[in-house]
Amino acid sequence: MSGGDRDGVLTRRALLVGLGAAGGAGAMYAAMGALGLAPNSQPKDYTPPQRSDFALTGRGAASVVILGAGVAGLATAYELGKAGYDCTILEARDRVGGRSMTLRGGDRVAEISGQTQQVKFGDGVYFNAGPARIAQWMVTLDYCRELGVPIEPFVNDNSSAYVYNKGMKAPVRARTARADTYGYLSELLAKATDTGALDRRLTPGDKEVLLDFLSEFGDIGRSHTYTGSDRRGLRSNPGMLPPAPLGTPPPLTEVLNYGLGRSITFPFGYEQASPMFQPVGGMDAIAAALADAVGRDRIRTSAVVKKITNLPDGVEVLHSGGSIRADYCVAALPPHVLARIPGNLEAGVVAALRTPVPVSGGKIGLEYGRRWWEIDERIYGGITETDMDISHIWYPSYGFHGSRGLLVGYYNLGDDADAYARLPHLERQRRALLQGMKIHGENYRNDLLSSVSVAWAGQPHIEGAWVAWPSYDAQFNLLRKPAGRVYFAGDWLTYLIAWQAGALESARAAVTDLHQRVVKES
Amino acid sequence: MSGGDRDGVLTRRALLVGLGAAGGAGAMYAAMGALGLAPNSQPKDYTPPQRSDFALTGRGAASVVILGAGVAGLATAYELGKAGYDCTILEARDRVGGRSMTLRGGDRVAEISGQTQQVKFGDGVYFNAGPARIAQWMVTLDYCRELGVPIEPFVNDNSSAYVYNKGMKAPVRARTARADTYGYLSELLAKATDTGALDRRLTPGDKEVLLDFLSEFGDIGRSHTYTGSDRRGLRSNPGMLPPAPLGTPPPLTEVLNYGLGRSITFPFGYEQASPMFQPVGGMDAIAAALADAVGRDRIRTSAVVKKITNLPDGVEVLHSGGSIRADYCVAALPPHVLARIPGNLEAGVVAALRTPVPVSGGKIGLEYGRRWWEIDERIYGGITETDMDISHIWYPSYGFHGSRGLLVGYYNLGDDADAYARLPHLERQRRALLQGMKIHGENYRNDLLSSVSVAWAGQPHIEGAWVAWPSYDAQFNLLRKPAGRVYFAGDWLTYLIAWQAGALESARAAVTDLHQRVVKES
Repeated sequence: MSGGDRDGVLTRRALLVGLGAAGGAGAMYAAMGALGLAPNSQPKDYTPPQRSDFALTGRGAASVVILGAGVAGLATAYELGKAGYDCTILEARDRVGGRSMTLRGGDRVAEISGQTQQVKFGDGVYFNAGPARIAQWMVTLDYCRELGVPIEPFVNDNSSAYVYNKGMKAPVRARTARADTYGYLSELLAKATDTGALDRRLTPGDKEVLLDFLSEFGDIGRSHTYTGSDRRGLRSNPGMLPPAPLGTPPPLTEVLNYGLGRSITFPFGYEQASPMFQPVGGMDAIAAALADAVGRDRIRTSAVVKKITNLPDGVEVLHSGGSIRADYCVAALPPHVLARIPGNLEAGVVAALRTPVPVSGGKIGLEYGRRWWEIDERIYGGITETDMDISHIWYPSYGFHGSRGLLVGYYNLGDDADAYARLPHLERQRRALLQGMKIHGENYRNDLLSSVSVAWAGQPHIEGAWVAWPSYDAQFNLLRKPAGRVYFAGDWLTYLIAWQAGALESARAAVTDLHQRVVKES
Repeated sequence: MSGGDRDGVLTRRALLVGLGAAGGAGAMYAAMGALGLAPNSQPKDYTPPQRSDFALTGRGAASVVILGAGVAGLATAYELGKAGYDCTILEARDRVGGRSMTLRGGDRVAEISGQTQQVKFGDGVYFNAGPARIAQWMVTLDYCRELGVPIEPFVNDNSSAYVYNKGMKAPVRARTARADTYGYLSELLAKATDTGALDRRLTPGDKEVLLDFLSEFGDIGRSHTYTGSDRRGLRSNPGMLPPAPLGTPPPLTEVLNYGLGRSITFPFGYEQASPMFQPVGGMDAIAAALADAVGRDRIRTSAVVKKITNLPDGVEVLHSGGSIRADYCVAALPPHVLARIPGNLEAGVVAALRTPVPVSGGKIGLEYGRRWWEIDERIYGGITETDMDISHIWYPSYGFHGSRGLLVGYYNLGDDADAYARLPHLERQRRALLQGMKIHGENYRNDLLSSVSVAWAGQPHIEGAWVAWPSYDAQFNLLRKPAGRVYFAGDWLTYLIAWQAGALESARAAVTDLHQRVVKES
C-alpha cells in the first residue's frame, strides 16, 4: 500500500536503516551533474528474458512454481513467460493481487478473527484498500504502459482540503494554512534580514534578491509584514463582485501552534510529490492485466502452501489442493508468512525471513449517496491531514460529479491501525465518523450509504500492510539470493517497501537471476 | 483563456484597477470566521428563470437576439431557454465557443492577416488554444455537472517539470528548485532565530515550535544547515539499490539568483491552486454542450453583425445574412469589437466599450509522435516555467502513455505574444523549438509531427486574448446595465476576466436582469 503516512514511515526507516552511500547503479548517472538533469527514471538495466536466449542450446525454458499471486508473483510469471517458462502460481486467497485489492459491490472481506463484511457499493464505486497511487518515476507506470492499463491523475495534494490538528479551534483549508505559514516565515526572515542579523551570511546583493523573493513567497509586499493575502482563500469568489477577503490571519503564535510541519511537507517528499497517478477503474487493473497476460489457467487460487522442499534437481511444493513439482520456485509471499511454512529451507534463511517486522495499516471506505465534498465544500480529490487517529481523509480522484462517491475515512498505521483493527467494523465506522464530523460536520454522517474497512494485520495470508527491516544487513542480503532452487521476491526485498514498484523491481531482479542460471545450465 | 501567466496579469491588474473593499455578497459569509470555513463556492444567489415565473400573467417569454456564441452568449441563451425565451444567436465565426476553441485534425485556423493553418493532428490529439483549466471553486464546474460534461484533473503543477531562467546554467527540476529554496530559507531563519535576532518577536515557546517546523520544512535537521535532501530528486531511484542522492545543492547565492519567485509562487494563487480540472476530450465540450442544450438551430454561424438599433419596443440587428428583430438583445462580443459596430447606442456607451484594452496572448501546440517527456523524462502533465519569451511549456494532462501527444510550446502574453504574432507560423514554430531545446535538448525537435499556433490578437471577430480595464469605474458599471433594450455580457464585465467562469457569471447576471424586467412588464 502506498503509505499515506510515508513521511512517518521514512522517519522510522531512517532510524532503523542506514540508508548510507549511493549504490552502484547511481554511478551511471554521476556525470550528469547535480542540477536535476539526471533522468528521473530507472536505470535501463533490465532486459526481460526472451526465447532467443536459449537459441544456442536449443533447450527450452524451465518450469517454475511461484508462491503468491500478489504483484511480485504475477510480475515474476509475466516476465518469465516472455521466454516461455512454464509457470504455475499458487495463491492462498480466492483472488489475485495480494495487497493490491480493490473492493466493489458484491465482494466479501474476511478477517482472521472471523469477522466478515459484505461490500454493498453501487455501480462504479470502488475502494483501493491497498495501494492507491503511483509516483511518476515508478516502474509501475511502465507496466501500465506495457500492459495497456489506462491511468489518470491521482490528486495527492489539494489546496482546498483541510488541515486539522487537535490543538486547533477549527479546521483550516490547506491553502489558508500554507498562506499564513509562508507569510509569517517570510515576514520573520525579511525582518531579520532588514535588521542586519544575516549580514555575515548574505552579501548586499543576496539580501536584495532574498527580500524580493520573500515579498513574493509570503505575499508580504514591501512592508515586510504579513497581513493576509488572497492566497488564504476568499469569503466570496470574484465574479460580478470583487473577491471578498477571508479576513486577517490569526496571530503568529496561533499559526505556529497549528503543528503544520507534516501536513505542509508531506507533498515535498520524493515518493509523494504531485502529480501522482492511478489506474482508471481501480488499482487492481494492474494485477488483473498481469494475470491475464500470464494466463488465468496458470494461477491456482485458494491453494495454501503447506510445505516447500528443495530437491537436488527441483522444488516440490505441497499445497491444500495437492502438490506440484518444478525446476525452480519463486516465493513471493510476505516474509513472516513464508517463515512459518514447513520445509527444508536452511535455519539461517528461516531466521532471516522472521526478521522484518510487520507494520499494521488500515483503511475504511465510506460510500455516500451525494458528493457533498464537491457540491458543498468544493473539494475535488486530495487529502485532509489530521493528527487524530484517522490520520487522513481522502476525497476520490474519480467519478467527479457522479451521484455517489467514496471517501477514505481513515488510513492509519501502527498503533492507530491496531486500535481500529481490534474493533468490529461498525465500531470502526462509528469512530471514523465521529472524527470526520469534527472536520465536515453533519455532511459526514448524512447520506452515508455503506462502508467497508480493511485491517491489513488481520487479512488472511497477508498479515500486515508491509514489513520494516530493523536494518538492511546480511539477513536482507541473504534473501536477495536464492536458497537452493528457491528464489524470493517482494517489495520487502527492496529499498522501496510498501510500494508496488518495489514488488515489480524485486520480481525483475529475481527473474534476471533465475534466467541467467537457467541459460548457463541449459 | 485561463492565464498561464496570471500572476503577471494580476500584477498588471492590481496596478490598473483598484480591487478595493469587499463587495456586498461577501458580507453574507462574514459571520463564518476567517479560518477558511466559509464555503469556497459562489453565493447561492442565482435562480434560473423558469416558465412558472410567467404563471400570474399567462404571457410568454420574450424574444432575444444574442450576439456572439462564445461562452457568455451560449450561457445566456441556455439560461433564458429554461423559461422558454425565444433566443437566436448570431455568431460571426464559423464555429461556436469563441475563445474556448479546441483544435483537432481537419480544423483550419485563419488569421486577420490572411495567414491560414491546416491542423494535421492525429486521432485523439487536441489543443485547447484558449481556456484550458478550471479551478475547483469556479461556476464552470457547476455547468459541467449540470450539462453532463465529464471532467478530469488538469495537472497545473508538477514537481518533475523544470524551471529555467536565463541566468541559470541549466534547467532544474521544480522539486530541486523548491527543495533548495526551502532548505536555505529554513537555514537562514533558523540561524537568525538561534542567534537571538528574533527574540523581540518570538517567545521562547514560539522559537521552539518554529525551529521544529523549519527543520521539517527545509529538511535541515537539527544542525540548522541545509546540505541537500532527497526532496531534490535522486540520481537513481530506490529499488533493488538504495536511492542515490542527486548531490550537494548549489551555493545559496546561486539558488537566490535563479529568480524563482514567480515559478514557486504560481500555484499558491487562488485561481491557479492545484488541483485544477479540464473537460475530457477538450475544453470546447462545455460550449458544445451549451450549444446542444440551446438547440443548434437557434445558432446562426458566419453571421457578422453590421448594425444594432434600439427601437422603442425592440431591437433590430442587421447582419451579413439578413436582419433580425427581437424584444431584447444581449451583446456578448468583445467590447472593442462591439464598439465598432454601427447603430444607435449612446455615445457614452460606445466610449465605455472602447475603454478596456485588449491583451495579446498566444499559444502553440506541438504534436509529437512519441511522448518523450513521459518516457525519457518522467514528466506526466504540468508546466515548465521559464523567463524566455515562450513563458511556459505545458505537458498534456490527457492521453498518458499514448502513441502521440501535444505540448503547448509557448503560452505568452503582451509583448512576447505580439512578437510571435508578427511571425508566420513556421517561424513561430522555429523560435519555440529553439527555446524548448534549451530545456529538453534534441527530444524537442525529434519526433515533431505537426504544430498549430494561435495569436489571439489576430483572430477574426475576437482580436485579443482578453481585455484589461484601466479601472473598474463608472464606465465598467455603465455597461453592466442595459443600454435601452441591449444588455451586455462577457468576462470583461466581471472581476474574473480571462476565465470562462467570468463569462458564465456575467451571463447569469444579464439573464437575471433581463428576466426581472420581462416578468415585471408582462
